[in-house]
Amino acid sequence: MHRRIKTFKSIVTNYKAVFFDAFGVLKNHQGLIPGIVKTFEFLDRKGIKYYILTNDSSRSPEMLAKWYQDRGVWQVTSDKILSSGMLAMEYFKVKVANGNAVAYLGTENSAHYIETAGLKTVAVKDIDLNDLGHIESFAFLDDEGFNWNEDINKTINLLRKKNMTVVVANTDINYPVSQNEISVAVGSLANMVEKIIGKMFIRFGKPDAQMFLLAFERALLDINVKRNEILMVGDTLYTDIIGGNKFGLDTVLVLSGNTLPDMALIRISSSGIIPTYICESAVIE
Amino acid sequence: MHRRIKTFKSIVTNYKAVFFDAFGVLKNHQGLIPGIVKTFEFLDRKGIKYYILTNDSSRSPEMLAKWYQDRGVWQVTSDKILSSGMLAMEYFKVKVANGNAVAYLGTENSAHYIETAGLKTVAVKDIDLNDLGHIESFAFLDDEGFNWNEDINKTINLLRKKNMTVVVANTDINYPVSQNEISVAVGSLANMVEKIIGKMFIRFGKPDAQMFLLAFERALLDINVKRNEILMVGDTLYTDIIGGNKFGLDTVLVLSGNTLPDMALIRISSSGIIPTYICESAVIE
Amino acid sequence: MHRRIKTFKSIVTNYKAVFFDAFGVLKNHQGLIPGIVKTFEFLDRKGIKYYILTNDSSRSPEMLAKWYQDRGVWQVTSDKILSSGMLAMEYFKVKVANGNAVAYLGTENSAHYIETAGLKTVAVKDIDLNDLGHIESFAFLDDEGFNWNEDINKTINLLRKKNMTVVVANTDINYPVSQNEISVAVGSLANMVEKIIGKMFIRFGKPDAQMFLLAFERALLDINVKRNEILMVGDTLYTDIIGGNKFGLDTVLVLSGNTLPDMALIRISSSGIIPTYICESAVIE
Amino acid sequence: MHRRIKTFKSIVTNYKAVFFDAFGVLKNHQGLIPGIVKTFEFLDRKGIKYYILTNDSSRSPEMLAKWYQDRGVWQVTSDKILSSGMLAMEYFKVKVANGNAVAYLGTENSAHYIETAGLKTVAVKDIDLNDLGHIESFAFLDDEGFNWNEDINKTINLLRKKNMTVVVANTDINYPVSQNEISVAVGSLANMVEKIIGKMFIRFGKPDAQMFLLAFERALLDINVKRNEILMVGDTLYTDIIGGNKFGLDTVLVLSGNTLPDMALIRISSSGIIPTYICESAVIE
Repeated sequence: MHRRIKTFKSIVTNYKAVFFDAFGVLKNHQGLIPGIVKTFEFLDRKGIKYYILTNDSSRSPEMLAKWYQDRGVWQVTSDKILSSGMLAMEYFKVKVANGNAVAYLGTENSAHYIETAGLKTVAVKDIDLNDLGHIESFAFLDDEGFNWNEDINKTINLLRKKNMTVVVANTDINYPVSQNEISVAVGSLANMVEKIIGKMFIRFGKPDAQMFLLAFERALLDINVKRNEILMVGDTLYTDIIGGNKFGLDTVLVLSGNTLPDMALIRISSSGIIPTYICESAVIE
Repeated sequence: MHRRIKTFKSIVTNYKAVFFDAFGVLKNHQGLIPGIVKTFEFLDRKGIKYYILTNDSSRSPEMLAKWYQDRGVWQVTSDKILSSGMLAMEYFKVKVANGNAVAYLGTENSAHYIETAGLKTVAVKDIDLNDLGHIESFAFLDDEGFNWNEDINKTINLLRKKNMTVVVANTDINYPVSQNEISVAVGSLANMVEKIIGKMFIRFGKPDAQMFLLAFERALLDINVKRNEILMVGDTLYTDIIGGNKFGLDTVLVLSGNTLPDMALIRISSSGIIPTYICESAVIE
Repeated sequence: MHRRIKTFKSIVTNYKAVFFDAFGVLKNHQGLIPGIVKTFEFLDRKGIKYYILTNDSSRSPEMLAKWYQDRGVWQVTSDKILSSGMLAMEYFKVKVANGNAVAYLGTENSAHYIETAGLKTVAVKDIDLNDLGHIESFAFLDDEGFNWNEDINKTINLLRKKNMTVVVANTDINYPVSQNEISVAVGSLANMVEKIIGKMFIRFGKPDAQMFLLAFERALLDINVKRNEILMVGDTLYTDIIGGNKFGLDTVLVLSGNTLPDMALIRISSSGIIPTYICESAVIE
Repeated sequence: MHRRIKTFKSIVTNYKAVFFDAFGVLKNHQGLIPGIVKTFEFLDRKGIKYYILTNDSSRSPEMLAKWYQDRGVWQVTSDKILSSGMLAMEYFKVKVANGNAVAYLGTENSAHYIETAGLKTVAVKDIDLNDLGHIESFAFLDDEGFNWNEDINKTINLLRKKNMTVVVANTDINYPVSQNEISVAVGSLANMVEKIIGKMFIRFGKPDAQMFLLAFERALLDINVKRNEILMVGDTLYTDIIGGNKFGLDTVLVLSGNTLPDMALIRISSSGIIPTYICESAVIE
């Protein structure tokens, strides 16, 4: 392990591809991390491929990419984005029988993406608990877009009434909404429901191997690459770094997000999750 | 252990006092358990004392007692009721400095009870996050009376901003609202918040010894009694029975509530929680 | 909350009684905390009562007291010591039928104490799994005195074969054995077994209210005292301080044990467990 | 979902490849499941590929294969076996610097396999806690081959002294040793140590996607196959079935092992883990 603090530029040139976490690495609550566009320009010049792995099931890869493009980072196209929502959609595509519906908690946007795969969806608030014949699966998609008081209780009684597979399309337990404030993420709501009904849900998202596999398979469409030729860049030890380490990638912890500079070494030591490198940020000047 | 199924009448006459759980023993979602008034008449005739131990912080003992009296059970007076909300109130009375306030999630009723002890309360929705000087403690009182979407997120940011003791005044994770439907209880909301902010809350309610101690101290005001002369009657292995066993009481599992007749022996065997007796119900004909 | 760092002497004189944790407060791996005898002399002069609350089921109160007396602290007599082992013994005395036996993991010393109450015990290694008729309860007493490889596996199969109440007489998950080394405590072994067999054990020890109740009842034999006239002194937020707070006692965190001076405020802030006071140690010069 | 009970033969012919769990499907505590050799003969005749996925890090694929061959199932060669131990070995091969050592708990056999990859290993009992410079990683390999009392405590102090990545090469918490008896698996020992030291370990084994990925990549060397053309066959809902479902495979729950016939539907309903099919066994007459 080489835990010296190095520049991101000196590290990244040793790899064929980079996997980026989004929040805390490329963007934060104020918008793009300043200067991050130069990182993509540099990677393009060097012929290093890049992909973004994000625990997000609130919108489609196209919508996620548009956010970057609206801010001048035209390099981030939808094919560069791998989200936990994509894993959920793949799951439903294979597992839900034709004509049946996926019940969900989330926004209309989050459901729309699943519908692009030809599946039917139905919001919890629109479900009739006495007519569940066509509902085959359940998805926790987003913490917004529904009334928690009413629809969480309705979800619990729905899942007690009919046994079905439940998918949690974003495992995060919270997310930042401003410099100092956070919000409950849909992963926490799912954990609460799971404990109350005593069943076991299927979860998609980092640190689970399936997110890294999705990105790895995408990279293989572009280049011939081995796992140890890929660099995972993230700001969170418990998702990005442990997940990357376990999948056989080298890892960089950046200090531009969740893990603050003065706490980085303490957190590494107390967690036992050891990144290959530590960098101030992923910005290449 | 005497796990034979006996009549409640033949058991209870061997004790000086009875501790009753409320829901599933004395009442259910439809109202009083039919015939339960005769149980109180019998106990009065025999001079056996009775107390009700309930994980409830949604209203005062007076209001809880009124429910029984409105239904003709005049024996249940407020001095017979010991609730987890009383433990919370006692805690705040001792620990919150004069003039400071307890922030809460719950109904106005649930807060009113704390105010009868001379304490100030403030609902989360009325808190200014930039003016927390007078707020000294936090209470999870009830799952109703507030907007979950807004006020749970506000609670999280309040507790991140100012370090204070957090009290969960009802540890139940759900409660029945009809024959087949349940609702999230405030204990589940507290568990979710606790996990997100990573702090440790103080919980009051069965199976914790403090509930049994509260009832035992109340009983000692009425009679001279030892713990093994008290019978705990409940419908839930995980709260009533294990709590009673641990406190040194003999215990009766009744089959009129949570634990259904055909599952009782399987649940006892799989949980390892062994009541002294099993009865159909606490009704004495 | 008064979190100023004060001298222990200036605090303790405001109380009628003191509850001490043992390890990290009165003693450490090297022996007595230097100067602690003067604290007992001071308390005697002022007429302040003192009791020691310890998560220890490895030996009797008499043997625990002898340790202090052998080191010149004659003030610590067995009636001043309240151990989690005493709660276990009380439980068995009430709950185990005459003639039946308690199976145990631990040393012979730890079992001997239970036998002084007239109960039979049998070490796991001496049990015949085909002849369990006389075994009625199980106790985790100590991490020493048995072969972990053989006897933990035998315990699991014993508890799968016969349903019985299981008591964990010390909830600690580890304990210090030298300046830098710790050892697995019996509480961790019990947690592992509980998870494998899926049953629910009864646990005795701080922070549970029953330990504080035991000490409170003992204190009431000596003096007329209310809970808010008692000071709990401990070195561990997660057992001594949260337990004392919840029971309605004022609490002192001392920095002579588990919680190091430079980490105390960070730990209080990150745990949300707030002592009434912080002191360097419980020594009174 | 097609939860009708069908014959394994009628199901398997719809797939290009089969993933088998070992214990409870192909073998049990008495040896081979009677008649299972005919299943392999049938699959060979039909040109259906097969692979065995096992949470086992106690020995090499060669040794695991030899067990089948010794019993006349010459079809199970080492290239058909994918074990959690292989994932651990791959991890160490990429992550441990040349010349450094992996400390381990387990048998010599379990360590020998890691050494075949050119790595050094050192048993916990042979470690000098004052000379850890060359030790870079830690592996939980097997529950046998060491003294639990001494070496688990030594492991805890080793991991407190030097921060390193810890790999748990078998996530199972117990395993059967006879008709009615089970034994603690190394996954339980790892869970206990992880909780005591408060760090986060890396785990390999079903239900984690990485085990299914390993087998899928192996299958792709033999045939061109998509995930929904593969059938996962297992006896345990919590590892085989939920893992297979999540990876996008169709799944068969067999009733020849962990999940008994009369409990299958109850367990499916109470867990929410729903296999595509249920079969008596994987035997094809």
